[in-house]
Amino acid sequence: MTSSQNSANKPKIVVIYSGGMDSYTVLRQASMQGYDVHPVAFNYGQRHSKELDIAKAVCEKYDYPFQLVDVSSILPLIKGSALTDDIDVPEGHYAEASMQQTVVPNRNMIMLSMAVGYAVSIEAEAVYFGAHSGDHAIYPDCRTSFLDAMNAVCQIANYQAVDIRAPFIAQNKIDILRTGLALGLDYSETWTCYKGLEKACGKCGSCQERLEAFELNKAKDPIAYF
Amino acid sequence: MTSSQNSANKPKIVVIYSGGMDSYTVLRQASMQGYDVHPVAFNYGQRHSKELDIAKAVCEKYDYPFQLVDVSSILPLIKGSALTDDIDVPEGHYAEASMQQTVVPNRNMIMLSMAVGYAVSIEAEAVYFGAHSGDHAIYPDCRTSFLDAMNAVCQIANYQAVDIRAPFIAQNKIDILRTGLALGLDYSETWTCYKGLEKACGKCGSCQERLEAFELNKAKDPIAYF
Repeated sequence: MTSSQNSANKPKIVVIYSGGMDSYTVLRQASMQGYDVHPVAFNYGQRHSKELDIAKAVCEKYDYPFQLVDVSSILPLIKGSALTDDIDVPEGHYAEASMQQTVVPNRNMIMLSMAVGYAVSIEAEAVYFGAHSGDHAIYPDCRTSFLDAMNAVCQIANYQAVDIRAPFIAQNKIDILRTGLALGLDYSETWTCYKGLEKACGKCGSCQERLEAFELNKAKDPIAYF
Repeated sequence: MTSSQNSANKPKIVVIYSGGMDSYTVLRQASMQGYDVHPVAFNYGQRHSKELDIAKAVCEKYDYPFQLVDVSSILPLIKGSALTDDIDVPEGHYAEASMQQTVVPNRNMIMLSMAVGYAVSIEAEAVYFGAHSGDHAIYPDCRTSFLDAMNAVCQIANYQAVDIRAPFIAQNKIDILRTGLALGLDYSETWTCYKGLEKACGKCGSCQERLEAFELNKAKDPIAYF
Protein backbone atom coordinates (compact mmCIF):
# COMPACT_ATOMS: atom_id res chain seq x y z
CA MET A 1 0.00 0.00 0.00
CA THR A 2 1.28 3.45 -0.85
CA SER A 3 1.48 5.65 2.23
CA SER A 4 1.91 9.37 1.72
CA GLN A 5 4.16 10.96 4.34
CA ASN A 6 2.38 13.85 5.99
CA SER A 7 5.43 16.06 6.47
CA ALA A 8 3.82 18.81 8.58
CA ASN A 9 5.49 19.12 11.99
CA LYS A 10 7.81 16.20 11.40
CA PRO A 11 11.54 16.80 11.93
CA LYS A 12 13.21 16.89 8.53
CA ILE A 13 16.24 14.74 7.69
CA VAL A 14 18.30 13.82 4.63
CA VAL A 15 19.11 10.14 4.11
CA ILE A 16 21.92 8.95 1.85
CA TYR A 17 20.12 6.12 0.12
CA SER A 18 21.69 3.82 -2.45
CA GLY A 19 19.00 1.21 -2.86
CA GLY A 20 21.05 -1.34 -0.91
CA MET A 21 19.78 -3.05 2.24
CA ASP A 22 21.69 -0.94 4.77
CA SER A 23 20.49 2.46 3.59
CA TYR A 24 17.02 1.03 2.89
CA THR A 25 16.78 -0.01 6.53
CA VAL A 26 18.05 3.37 7.72
CA LEU A 27 15.53 5.16 5.47
CA ARG A 28 12.49 3.07 6.31
CA GLN A 29 13.28 2.99 10.04
CA ALA A 30 13.66 6.79 10.17
CA SER A 31 10.40 7.22 8.28
CA MET A 32 8.61 4.86 10.65
CA GLN A 33 10.15 6.77 13.59
CA GLY A 34 8.35 9.88 12.39
CA TYR A 35 10.97 11.77 10.42
CA ASP A 36 10.16 13.67 7.23
CA VAL A 37 12.74 11.83 5.11
CA HIS A 38 14.53 13.30 2.09
CA PRO A 39 16.47 10.49 0.41
CA VAL A 40 19.37 11.35 -1.89
CA ALA A 41 21.30 8.90 -4.07
CA PHE A 42 24.63 9.59 -5.69
CA ASN A 43 25.46 7.95 -9.00
CA TYR A 44 29.21 8.08 -9.37
CA GLY A 45 29.25 5.69 -12.30
CA GLN A 46 29.13 2.52 -10.23
CA ARG A 47 28.38 -0.69 -12.07
CA HIS A 48 25.41 -1.54 -9.89
CA SER A 49 23.14 1.27 -11.12
CA LYS A 50 20.37 -1.30 -10.66
CA GLU A 51 20.52 -0.19 -7.01
CA LEU A 52 19.47 3.28 -8.12
CA ASP A 53 16.48 2.04 -10.13
CA ILE A 54 15.23 0.22 -7.07
CA ALA A 55 15.87 3.29 -4.89
CA LYS A 56 13.71 5.38 -7.20
CA ALA A 57 10.90 2.82 -7.21
CA VAL A 58 10.92 2.55 -3.42
CA CYS A 59 10.71 6.34 -3.06
CA GLU A 60 7.76 6.46 -5.46
CA LYS A 61 6.02 3.70 -3.53
CA TYR A 62 6.39 5.45 -0.16
CA ASP A 63 6.00 8.99 -1.51
CA TYR A 64 9.47 10.18 -0.48
CA PRO A 65 10.94 13.13 -2.44
CA PHE A 66 13.83 11.33 -4.17
CA GLN A 67 16.93 13.21 -5.35
CA LEU A 68 19.33 11.43 -7.69
CA VAL A 69 22.59 13.24 -8.28
CA ASP A 70 24.99 12.24 -11.03
CA VAL A 71 28.48 12.83 -9.71
CA SER A 72 30.26 10.72 -12.33
CA SER A 73 32.04 13.88 -13.54
CA ILE A 74 34.28 13.61 -10.49
CA LEU A 75 35.55 10.15 -11.48
CA PRO A 76 38.61 11.42 -13.36
CA LEU A 77 39.71 12.82 -10.00
CA ILE A 78 39.26 9.70 -7.90
CA LYS A 79 40.24 6.76 -10.09
CA GLY A 80 41.29 3.40 -8.78
CA SER A 81 38.20 1.50 -7.64
CA ALA A 82 36.79 -1.77 -8.92
CA LEU A 83 33.29 -0.38 -8.41
CA THR A 84 33.76 2.21 -11.09
CA ASP A 85 36.78 1.22 -13.18
CA ASP A 86 37.43 -1.67 -15.51
CA ILE A 87 39.11 -3.79 -12.87
CA ASP A 88 37.39 -7.14 -12.24
CA VAL A 89 35.08 -7.13 -9.26
CA PRO A 90 36.78 -9.36 -6.69
CA GLU A 91 34.88 -12.48 -5.64
CA GLY A 92 35.07 -13.87 -2.14
CA HIS A 93 34.24 -12.64 1.31
CA TYR A 94 33.67 -8.94 1.76
CA ALA A 95 36.22 -8.57 4.54
CA GLU A 96 39.12 -9.93 2.52
CA ALA A 97 42.04 -7.69 1.74
CA SER A 98 41.23 -7.88 -1.98
CA MET A 99 38.12 -5.85 -1.25
CA GLN A 100 40.32 -2.83 -0.65
CA GLN A 101 40.04 -2.46 -4.44
CA THR A 102 36.43 -1.42 -3.94
CA VAL A 103 37.44 1.63 -1.94
CA VAL A 104 36.59 4.88 -3.71
CA PRO A 105 38.94 7.50 -2.23
CA ASN A 106 37.11 9.70 0.27
CA ARG A 107 33.72 8.45 -0.91
CA ASN A 108 31.74 8.98 2.27
CA MET A 109 33.08 12.48 2.88
CA ILE A 110 32.21 13.43 -0.70
CA MET A 111 28.65 12.10 -0.39
CA LEU A 112 28.15 13.49 3.11
CA SER A 113 29.40 16.95 2.16
CA MET A 114 26.86 17.17 -0.68
CA ALA A 115 24.10 15.76 1.53
CA VAL A 116 24.94 18.38 4.17
CA GLY A 117 24.64 21.12 1.53
CA TYR A 118 21.22 19.71 0.72
CA ALA A 119 20.30 19.57 4.43
CA VAL A 120 21.24 23.22 4.86
CA SER A 121 19.22 24.26 1.81
CA ILE A 122 16.03 22.50 3.02
CA GLU A 123 16.68 23.20 6.72
CA ALA A 124 16.99 19.54 7.67
CA GLU A 125 18.48 18.84 11.09
CA ALA A 126 20.58 15.81 10.14
CA VAL A 127 22.04 13.57 7.47
CA TYR A 128 21.65 9.81 7.98
CA PHE A 129 23.83 7.19 6.35
CA GLY A 130 24.18 3.45 6.57
CA ALA A 131 27.73 2.88 7.84
CA HIS A 132 28.05 -0.25 9.96
CA SER A 133 30.71 -2.11 11.91
CA GLY A 134 31.19 -4.75 9.19
CA ASP A 135 32.81 -2.07 7.05
CA HIS A 136 35.14 -0.76 9.73
CA ALA A 137 38.03 -3.05 8.82
CA ILE A 138 38.39 -1.95 5.23
CA TYR A 139 36.69 1.44 5.01
CA PRO A 140 38.20 4.11 7.28
CA ASP A 141 35.25 6.37 6.44
CA CYS A 142 32.75 3.92 7.97
CA ARG A 143 34.34 4.09 11.44
CA THR A 144 33.06 5.85 14.55
CA SER A 145 36.15 8.08 14.62
CA PHE A 146 35.26 9.32 11.14
CA LEU A 147 31.62 9.84 12.13
CA ASP A 148 32.66 11.85 15.20
CA ALA A 149 35.09 14.02 13.21
CA MET A 150 32.49 14.65 10.48
CA ASN A 151 29.98 15.65 13.13
CA ALA A 152 32.45 18.12 14.59
CA VAL A 153 33.04 19.86 11.26
CA CYS A 154 29.36 19.79 10.25
CA GLN A 155 28.38 21.68 13.39
CA ILE A 156 30.38 24.72 12.27
CA ALA A 157 30.66 24.62 8.47
CA ASN A 158 27.41 26.52 7.81
CA TYR A 159 25.12 28.98 9.59
CA GLN A 160 23.00 25.98 10.49
CA ALA A 161 24.50 22.99 12.31
CA VAL A 162 23.81 19.60 10.72
CA ASP A 163 24.17 16.32 12.61
CA ILE A 164 25.63 13.29 10.87
CA ARG A 165 23.94 10.13 12.14
CA ALA A 166 24.80 6.54 11.35
CA PRO A 167 22.26 4.57 13.42
CA PHE A 168 23.98 1.23 12.76
CA ILE A 169 27.61 2.25 13.11
CA ALA A 170 28.06 0.06 16.20
CA GLN A 171 26.16 -2.87 14.67
CA ASN A 172 26.82 -5.24 11.78
CA LYS A 173 24.82 -6.22 8.71
CA ILE A 174 23.25 -9.14 10.57
CA ASP A 175 21.97 -6.71 13.23
CA ILE A 176 20.68 -4.33 10.55
CA LEU A 177 18.72 -7.11 8.88
CA ARG A 178 17.37 -8.29 12.25
CA THR A 179 16.14 -4.75 12.96
CA GLY A 180 14.56 -4.45 9.52
CA LEU A 181 12.84 -7.84 9.69
CA ALA A 182 11.45 -6.92 13.11
CA LEU A 183 10.04 -3.73 11.55
CA GLY A 184 8.40 -5.84 8.86
CA LEU A 185 10.54 -4.43 6.04
CA ASP A 186 10.41 -6.10 2.63
CA TYR A 187 13.95 -6.77 1.41
CA SER A 188 12.76 -7.51 -2.10
CA GLU A 189 12.82 -3.70 -2.24
CA THR A 190 16.64 -3.71 -2.11
CA TRP A 191 19.57 -4.56 -4.38
CA THR A 192 23.03 -5.58 -3.21
CA CYS A 193 25.01 -7.42 -5.90
CA TYR A 194 28.03 -5.50 -7.19
CA LYS A 195 27.59 -6.99 -10.68
CA GLY A 196 24.21 -5.41 -11.43
CA LEU A 197 22.92 -8.14 -13.75
CA GLU A 198 19.32 -9.41 -14.10
CA LYS A 199 19.58 -11.53 -10.96
CA ALA A 200 22.08 -11.34 -8.11
CA CYS A 201 25.29 -13.31 -8.72
CA GLY A 202 25.46 -14.81 -5.24
CA LYS A 203 29.25 -14.89 -5.48
CA CYS A 204 30.60 -11.37 -5.06
CA GLY A 205 31.56 -10.24 -1.59
CA SER A 206 28.47 -8.12 -1.31
CA CYS A 207 26.11 -11.00 -2.20
CA GLN A 208 27.93 -13.37 0.16
CA GLU A 209 27.61 -10.92 3.03
CA ARG A 210 23.90 -10.45 2.29
CA LEU A 211 23.23 -14.19 2.11
CA GLU A 212 25.15 -14.73 5.35
CA ALA A 213 23.02 -12.08 7.08
CA PHE A 214 19.80 -13.83 6.00
CA GLU A 215 21.15 -17.21 7.02
CA LEU A 216 22.17 -16.00 10.48
CA ASN A 217 18.74 -14.41 10.89
CA LYS A 218 17.16 -17.73 9.86
CA ALA A 219 15.30 -15.88 7.09
CA LYS A 220 15.00 -16.37 3.33
CA ASP A 221 16.30 -13.68 1.02
CA PRO A 222 13.34 -12.70 -1.19
CA ILE A 223 15.43 -11.64 -4.22
CA ALA A 224 16.36 -13.95 -7.13
CA TYR A 225 19.85 -15.38 -7.59
CA PHE A 226 21.44 -17.07 -10.61
CA MET B 1 57.95 32.33 -20.63
CA THR B 2 56.62 28.83 -20.22
CA SER B 3 58.41 26.96 -17.45
CA SER B 4 57.92 23.21 -17.22
CA GLN B 5 57.69 21.97 -13.65
CA ASN B 6 60.19 19.20 -13.08
CA SER B 7 58.05 17.14 -10.73
CA ALA B 8 60.66 14.53 -9.75
CA ASN B 9 61.30 14.51 -5.99
CA LYS B 10 59.01 17.44 -5.33
CA PRO B 11 56.33 16.98 -2.67
CA LYS B 12 52.98 16.65 -4.42
CA ILE B 13 49.98 18.78 -3.48
CA VAL B 14 46.48 19.50 -4.81
CA VAL B 15 45.42 23.15 -5.05
CA ILE B 16 41.79 24.22 -5.33
CA TYR B 17 42.17 26.85 -8.00
CA SER B 18 39.32 28.98 -9.33
CA GLY B 19 41.18 31.49 -11.46
CA GLY B 20 40.60 34.23 -8.88
CA MET B 21 43.42 36.17 -7.23
CA ASP B 22 43.41 34.32 -3.90
CA SER B 23 43.78 30.81 -5.27
CA TYR B 24 46.15 32.08 -8.01
CA THR B 25 48.45 33.42 -5.28
CA VAL B 26 48.20 30.16 -3.32
CA LEU B 27 48.98 28.15 -6.46
CA ARG B 28 51.87 30.21 -7.74
CA GLN B 29 53.42 30.61 -4.29
CA ALA B 30 53.30 26.86 -3.65
CA SER B 31 54.83 26.18 -7.05
CA MET B 32 57.61 28.70 -6.38
CA GLN B 33 58.14 27.07 -2.96
CA GLY B 34 59.00 23.82 -4.73
CA TYR B 35 55.76 21.85 -4.63
CA ASP B 36 54.59 19.68 -7.50
CA VAL B 37 51.20 21.39 -7.84
CA HIS B 38 48.03 19.72 -9.11
CA PRO B 39 45.39 22.43 -9.54
CA VAL B 40 41.73 21.47 -9.62
CA ALA B 41 38.83 23.78 -10.46
CA PHE B 42 35.19 23.04 -9.76
CA ASN B 43 32.54 24.43 -12.07
CA TYR B 44 29.29 24.39 -10.14
CA GLY B 45 27.47 26.52 -12.70
CA GLN B 46 28.72 29.83 -11.36
CA ARG B 47 28.14 32.85 -13.57
CA HIS B 48 31.78 33.81 -13.62
CA SER B 49 33.00 30.84 -15.70
CA LYS B 50 35.44 33.37 -17.14
CA GLU B 51 37.46 32.57 -14.01
CA LEU B 52 37.76 28.99 -15.23
CA ASP B 53 38.96 29.98 -18.72
CA ILE B 54 41.72 32.01 -17.13
CA ALA B 55 42.55 29.15 -14.76
CA LYS B 56 43.01 26.82 -17.72
CA ALA B 57 45.21 29.31 -19.59
CA VAL B 58 47.41 29.89 -16.54
CA CYS B 59 47.90 26.14 -16.07
CA GLU B 60 48.87 25.75 -19.73
CA LYS B 61 51.35 28.61 -19.42
CA TYR B 62 53.06 27.17 -16.34
CA ASP B 63 52.70 23.51 -17.37
CA TYR B 64 50.52 22.50 -14.41
CA PRO B 65 48.28 19.44 -14.88
CA PHE B 66 44.87 21.14 -14.70
CA GLN B 67 41.72 19.26 -13.70
CA LEU B 68 38.36 20.91 -14.31
CA VAL B 69 35.42 19.13 -12.72
CA ASP B 70 31.84 19.97 -13.62
CA VAL B 71 29.80 19.59 -10.45
CA SER B 72 26.78 21.52 -11.71
CA SER B 73 24.71 18.33 -11.37
CA ILE B 74 24.70 18.90 -7.61
CA LEU B 75 22.99 22.29 -7.95
CA PRO B 76 19.43 20.96 -7.56
CA LEU B 77 20.56 19.87 -4.10
CA ILE B 78 22.08 23.14 -2.93
CA LYS B 79 19.92 25.90 -4.37
CA GLY B 80 19.74 29.39 -2.96
CA SER B 81 22.88 31.27 -4.01
CA ALA B 82 23.17 34.38 -6.18
CA LEU B 83 26.35 32.94 -7.67
CA THR B 84 24.45 30.16 -9.36
CA ASP B 85 20.76 31.05 -9.35
CA ASP B 86 18.79 33.75 -11.11
CA ILE B 87 18.87 36.10 -8.16
CA ASP B 88 20.55 39.44 -8.93
CA VAL B 89 24.18 39.64 -7.87
CA PRO B 90 24.25 42.11 -4.99
CA GLU B 91 26.28 45.28 -5.51
CA GLY B 92 28.14 46.97 -2.69
CA HIS B 93 30.87 45.98 -0.31
CA TYR B 94 31.73 42.34 0.00
CA ALA B 95 31.28 42.22 3.76
CA GLU B 96 27.72 43.51 3.75
CA ALA B 97 24.93 41.29 5.00
CA SER B 98 23.42 41.17 1.50
CA MET B 99 26.43 39.13 0.44
CA GLN B 100 25.09 36.22 2.47
CA GLN B 101 23.11 35.54 -0.71
CA THR B 102 26.36 34.45 -2.32
CA VAL B 103 26.82 31.61 0.16
CA VAL B 104 26.56 28.20 -1.50
CA PRO B 105 25.61 25.78 1.28
CA ASN B 106 28.61 23.74 2.39
CA ARG B 107 30.63 24.80 -0.66
CA ASN B 108 34.11 24.49 0.79
CA MET B 109 33.47 21.09 2.37
CA ILE B 110 32.11 19.82 -0.95
CA MET B 111 35.12 21.07 -2.91
CA LEU B 112 37.63 19.97 -0.26
CA SER B 113 36.15 16.47 -0.02
CA MET B 114 36.54 15.96 -3.77
CA ALA B 115 40.03 17.47 -3.73
CA VAL B 116 40.98 15.10 -0.90
CA GLY B 117 39.73 12.15 -2.98
CA TYR B 118 42.00 13.40 -5.76
CA ALA B 119 44.91 13.82 -3.32
CA VAL B 120 44.50 10.23 -2.12
CA SER B 121 44.37 8.91 -5.68
CA ILE B 122 47.60 10.67 -6.74
CA GLU B 123 49.28 10.30 -3.31
CA ALA B 124 49.49 14.03 -2.66
CA GLU B 125 50.28 15.05 0.91
CA ALA B 126 47.93 18.04 1.13
CA VAL B 127 45.13 20.09 -0.36
CA TYR B 128 45.64 23.86 -0.48
CA PHE B 129 42.85 26.41 -0.72
CA GLY B 130 42.59 30.16 -0.64
CA ALA B 131 40.44 30.92 2.41
CA HIS B 132 41.35 34.24 4.06
CA SER B 133 40.27 36.32 7.02
CA GLY B 134 38.24 38.74 4.88
CA ASP B 135 35.74 35.94 4.33
CA HIS B 136 35.46 34.91 7.98
CA ALA B 137 32.54 37.19 8.75
CA ILE B 138 30.15 35.80 6.15
CA TYR B 139 31.49 32.36 5.26
CA PRO B 140 31.69 29.93 8.21
CA ASP B 141 33.64 27.53 6.00
CA CYS B 142 36.49 30.02 5.56
CA ARG B 143 37.27 30.18 9.29
CA THR B 144 40.16 28.67 11.19
CA SER B 145 37.78 26.53 13.25
CA PHE B 146 36.47 24.97 10.02
CA LEU B 147 40.01 24.44 8.72
CA ASP B 148 41.03 22.71 11.97
CA ALA B 149 37.97 20.46 11.98
CA MET B 150 38.48 19.54 8.31
CA ASN B 151 42.09 18.70 9.05
CA ALA B 152 41.01 16.42 11.88
CA VAL B 153 38.62 14.42 9.68
CA CYS B 154 41.01 14.33 6.70
CA GLN B 155 43.70 12.67 8.81
CA ILE B 156 41.50 9.60 9.34
CA ALA B 157 39.05 9.39 6.44
CA ASN B 158 41.34 7.36 4.16
CA TYR B 159 44.30 4.99 4.44
CA GLN B 160 46.46 8.00 3.68
CA ALA B 161 46.23 11.17 5.77
CA VAL B 162 45.77 14.40 3.80
CA ASP B 163 46.51 17.83 5.26
CA ILE B 164 44.22 20.75 4.48
CA ARG B 165 46.24 23.95 4.24
CA ALA B 166 44.99 27.48 3.83
CA PRO B 167 48.20 29.55 3.84
CA PHE B 168 46.33 32.87 4.03
CA ILE B 169 43.62 31.97 6.55
CA ALA B 170 45.02 34.44 9.11
CA GLN B 171 45.55 37.19 6.52
CA ASN B 172 43.26 39.31 4.39
CA LYS B 173 43.07 40.00 0.65
CA ILE B 174 45.34 43.01 1.00
CA ASP B 175 48.00 40.77 2.59
CA ILE B 176 47.52 38.15 -0.13
CA LEU B 177 48.08 40.72 -2.86
CA ARG B 178 51.11 42.15 -1.02
CA THR B 179 52.60 38.65 -0.89
CA GLY B 180 51.87 38.04 -4.56
CA LEU B 181 53.27 41.38 -5.71
CA ALA B 182 56.44 40.71 -3.70
CA LEU B 183 56.73 37.36 -5.50
CA GLY B 184 56.43 39.21 -8.82
CA LEU B 185 53.09 37.62 -9.72
CA ASP B 186 51.14 38.99 -12.69
CA TYR B 187 47.54 39.64 -11.64
CA SER B 188 46.43 40.08 -15.23
CA GLU B 189 46.42 36.26 -14.99
CA THR B 190 43.38 36.38 -12.66
CA TRP B 191 39.65 37.11 -12.81
CA THR B 192 37.51 38.31 -9.93
CA CYS B 193 34.27 39.97 -11.08
CA TYR B 194 31.13 38.05 -10.19
CA LYS B 195 29.40 39.24 -13.37
CA GLY B 196 31.76 37.51 -15.82
CA LEU B 197 31.37 40.00 -18.69
CA GLU B 198 34.04 41.13 -21.18
CA LYS B 199 35.59 43.52 -18.68
CA ALA B 200 35.24 43.63 -14.90
CA CYS B 201 32.22 45.61 -13.67
CA GLY B 202 34.09 47.42 -10.88
CA LYS B 203 30.88 47.57 -8.88
CA CYS B 204 30.13 44.14 -7.47
CA GLY B 205 31.42 43.33 -3.99
CA SER B 206 34.15 41.15 -5.41
CA CYS B 207 35.47 43.89 -7.75
CA GLN B 208 35.33 46.48 -4.98
CA GLU B 209 37.32 44.28 -2.65
CA ARG B 210 39.92 43.65 -5.38
CA LEU B 211 40.25 47.35 -6.23
CA GLU B 212 40.58 48.19 -2.55
CA ALA B 213 43.39 45.64 -2.17
CA PHE B 214 45.31 47.20 -5.08
CA GLU B 215 44.74 50.71 -3.74
CA LEU B 216 45.96 49.81 -0.26
CA ASN B 217 49.02 48.17 -1.81
CA LYS B 218 49.62 51.35 -3.85
CA ALA B 219 49.55 49.22 -7.01
CA LYS B 220 47.58 49.40 -10.28
CA ASP B 221 45.21 46.56 -11.13
CA PRO B 222 46.35 45.33 -14.57
CA ILE B 223 42.89 44.09 -15.69
CA ALA B 224 40.39 46.17 -17.68
CA TYR B 225 37.26 47.65 -16.12
CA PHE B 226 34.13 49.12 -17.75
